[in-house]
Amino acid sequence: MRVLGIDPGLTRCGMGVVDGTVGRTLTMVDVGVFRTPAELDTARRLHQLEQQIEASVVAHRPDVVAVERVFSQHNVSTVMGTAQASGIAMLVAARHGIPVHLHTPSEVKAAVTGSGRADKAQVTAMVTRLLRLTEAPRPADAADALALAICHIWRGGAQNRLQEAIAKAEQATRKAAVR
Amino acid sequence: MRVLGIDPGLTRCGMGVVDGTVGRTLTMVDVGVFRTPAELDTARRLHQLEQQIEASVVAHRPDVVAVERVFSQHNVSTVMGTAQASGIAMLVAARHGIPVHLHTPSEVKAAVTGSGRADKAQVTAMVTRLLRLTEAPRPADAADALALAICHIWRGGAQNRLQEAIAKAEQATRKAAVR
Repeated sequence: MRVLGIDPGLTRCGMGVVDGTVGRTLTMVDVGVFRTPAELDTARRLHQLEQQIEASVVAHRPDVVAVERVFSQHNVSTVMGTAQASGIAMLVAARHGIPVHLHTPSEVKAAVTGSGRADKAQVTAMVTRLLRLTEAPRPADAADALALAICHIWRGGAQNRLQEAIAKAEQATRKAAVR
Repeated sequence: MRVLGIDPGLTRCGMGVVDGTVGRTLTMVDVGVFRTPAELDTARRLHQLEQQIEASVVAHRPDVVAVERVFSQHNVSTVMGTAQASGIAMLVAARHGIPVHLHTPSEVKAAVTGSGRADKAQVTAMVTRLLRLTEAPRPADAADALALAICHIWRGGAQNRLQEAIAKAEQATRKAAVR
């Protein structure tokens, strides 16, 4: 299973692509950060972000897109941009018929470190170890996106397989309709 | 000037298109509500909303898209969906090189009723009168979208003209680059 993890944001949007299944070795395929210029208005930043996520989905063809769940309680000043960025990621996935799963920050931390209250350094250290990287991924948003992808692979199982089967059936129906 | 007003939402997203300039008669061009099924996941609802807004922008070619500004303080339970829906509207406008303006609910109410604390019935009554409609637009989201468009036309002026000139210059540059 190939998972594209997205840690949504307008200034920095973390992305990480991981291949793996439960109980097998994990492989990092790509990691990076999408950025949009703070001097642009929000509409154009969202458009630039869409183009970057779209390019990444087209390049990597993930089976699942895992997005960090945004809570309205935290960071009130930036939550709108974060919510909109997560919406763009979800939209792009849906456009390609790829299932989207949301995971909370504490689910992600618990999956990779064993503790839902782990700090960023601990998450980065575990991501580096689990993916057998020679260097820690930087910035933290990129490491978080990889952690999201790992979390999704490990929390997966019956539920993922069911949702993927539904998505594939729908894609087949769509393709049949186009012909 | 043609303005597409968007009152963002996932369950009901109001849309209204109004032609007019400051000091001239206003004309309603279109009004309606985009809906997405509550039983779909958020990603697919955002995708359906994108397709509906896209079709409306292509059909009406507005000069400006006016979107209601979402506040994180209100309606915490639905604010994520509303923020994401507003992001989709902004994205679609940016994709077509159309300037986006945000107006707060109290700016809109003050523009059409003279009071920033007017209730929905008062806004609907004034929208019906200002656009010389024989029936009040329903539901309230549709009336709100028309009020947004009217608000934008009336609050417009020097700032609008400047932003439109910039957008047109950018579109011309883009077209020249494509050739």
